[in-house]
Amino acid sequence: MASRLSDYAGLAARLGVDAVAIVPGPNFARMTGHNFHSNERPLVLVIPAEGAPAAVVPNLELGSFAHLDFPGAVFDWRDQDGYQRAFDALARHMALQSLAVEGQVMRVFVHHALAAAWPGLRILDAERDISGLRLCKSPDEIAALEQAIAISERALARVLDGVRPGQTEKQVEQALVIALFAEGAEDQSFAPIVAAADNSALPHAHARPDYAIRPGDALLLDFGARWGGFCADITRTVFVGHATDEAAEVYDTVLRANLAGHAVTRPGVTAHQVDDAVISVLEASPFADRIRTKTGHGLGREVHEAPYIMRGNHQVLEPGMVFTNEPGLYRIGGFGVRIEDDILVTETGCRSLTSCPRELIVTAA
Amino acid sequence: MASRLSDYAGLAARLGVDAVAIVPGPNFARMTGHNFHSNERPLVLVIPAEGAPAAVVPNLELGSFAHLDFPGAVFDWRDQDGYQRAFDALARHMALQSLAVEGQVMRVFVHHALAAAWPGLRILDAERDISGLRLCKSPDEIAALEQAIAISERALARVLDGVRPGQTEKQVEQALVIALFAEGAEDQSFAPIVAAADNSALPHAHARPDYAIRPGDALLLDFGARWGGFCADITRTVFVGHATDEAAEVYDTVLRANLAGHAVTRPGVTAHQVDDAVISVLEASPFADRIRTKTGHGLGREVHEAPYIMRGNHQVLEPGMVFTNEPGLYRIGGFGVRIEDDILVTETGCRSLTSCPRELIVTAA
Repeated sequence: MASRLSDYAGLAARLGVDAVAIVPGPNFARMTGHNFHSNERPLVLVIPAEGAPAAVVPNLELGSFAHLDFPGAVFDWRDQDGYQRAFDALARHMALQSLAVEGQVMRVFVHHALAAAWPGLRILDAERDISGLRLCKSPDEIAALEQAIAISERALARVLDGVRPGQTEKQVEQALVIALFAEGAEDQSFAPIVAAADNSALPHAHARPDYAIRPGDALLLDFGARWGGFCADITRTVFVGHATDEAAEVYDTVLRANLAGHAVTRPGVTAHQVDDAVISVLEASPFADRIRTKTGHGLGREVHEAPYIMRGNHQVLEPGMVFTNEPGLYRIGGFGVRIEDDILVTETGCRSLTSCPRELIVTAA
Repeated sequence: MASRLSDYAGLAARLGVDAVAIVPGPNFARMTGHNFHSNERPLVLVIPAEGAPAAVVPNLELGSFAHLDFPGAVFDWRDQDGYQRAFDALARHMALQSLAVEGQVMRVFVHHALAAAWPGLRILDAERDISGLRLCKSPDEIAALEQAIAISERALARVLDGVRPGQTEKQVEQALVIALFAEGAEDQSFAPIVAAADNSALPHAHARPDYAIRPGDALLLDFGARWGGFCADITRTVFVGHATDEAAEVYDTVLRANLAGHAVTRPGVTAHQVDDAVISVLEASPFADRIRTKTGHGLGREVHEAPYIMRGNHQVLEPGMVFTNEPGLYRIGGFGVRIEDDILVTETGCRSLTSCPRELIVTAA
């Protein structure tokens, strides 16, 4: 933990603030190797630019907290006393005039407790900088992600073997979720999308209990296992029994866009450039009038994180960054195709962590 | 939606603030009948004490937002422009000097956007009052909870049929999760606890991949399905193959404590009184020196919510409230027993929504 703590102390110095505060969530997990539920009991780590860190911890979590080997003072509090006194004691222990927080993780009640403990404290939303420390994944983190992806791909293979016309979207979704856990998922990265025919054209479709899959339908599956705290995110679109010529042509277009993303990704290229390479294939196709989305998003302890692969984001890619490459074409009332891989930026280029076939698949009739 | 919106307008008036702000989460779901992912894109509803509400909505969510039939102005924003302008436009549309927010749901970046849009705005953490509107469940909400519990109980029966010495805790956990989804869960209420022998004595145990269950072990399963947005939460402790006399005696003590909770619960009684009735049984037993916890917590759209059933909480119980009754006795290095039911306060007393056997169960050897 000590080496990672120093990342956050260094960040405080770089931001010109007295300290960084971390609450349970993805940054907490990266820093400490453990996590806690984000619940009604505040738990906060404060890491100053210089000197020892300190923490506010609910008394009933002290046992679990001990596993962190946290090298600083701990101010605990009990339900019957409330938490403000522990924040106040921390404030007497550590003088602060400015504090960087994770604006998208920390909740308002913790913000209020901090503001009350240090009157006049300047609280800076440094979400981008704090979570930015998660941008480049370590070898251990990449191994966890590969395991999450392997579980997801085995689950997909199992489900595709069993897909038949007449099954409802909901039945396929249930089979997919069960397969993820049977293959060893700790959890799902997110509630999966299993959508056939016209439903596949909606970006956030819900599986329908009353739509039975028909021969010729597109069937889009967007899902992922979580393992070791890391999130897989994969989409494959298959065709049930047969694919029409139009379907095959749309599929081929999306596949070429996906491959363009693979081809252009290397250190030094920007997120903008990747999106541009991918989207340009779709724009130059006969299907340019169909709905598109940005190419993808970063992937790690959260299923949506930086870097966002979109035009206008001039973030430079570096080795260790991981993102989704998920071009799609969607026609409302018709069907949608999305092909989503998880891409690791390497020293010399990139490597797809997803290895399941991305060529057009026609399932059993 | 209109009738529930008026609950929040009425609350703003009662709190003496100009408006209440609601972000995606359990209160949002109660008010609108829908929910959105809480992600990096702020979505906020502002319901004034008087007059029409208004909302800030990410442009790409406008399609889903339309399903809410929201009866007020909508200020949308696109990724490329950022969200502050939409908050500023809302501020020009609706003058506010004070605003009540959900302190345990709203995150700091939204707080900052609100504070920037209305300079000098007094932002009040009204978590208890806003979530307090969820305390008494409607008949539809109770029906959803009953369905979540029925799914959970079917899954438990399935798993207990298959438990055998030699299986690891992790294998039983996996079977439980798969059974929950196979029985129709939308999701899990929380990551389950499946803990045998000494592990059953830890309140937040993790299933071990390397501990094979042995004859005579206590096996504690704490888990629940989510269905219709509502969370079941059930614990049963069984004994594998046989139970020692000590185990049977501890079990009987915990069961009597559980039954004391059922017996005392009715409208007008306080949470304190329920906890006191339950804990007194444990304190008067030969096992008074073992570790105990509070009796329980409210249950609904969140797996932990008000009312908390603990001494010192003088919240008066009312019909429609639901809480867990989960006494336990834990001996570190020995074993733990917990028996957890989900209790509905009725007009005349209470009703256990959990109906699976709570008497001592000895599984197949």
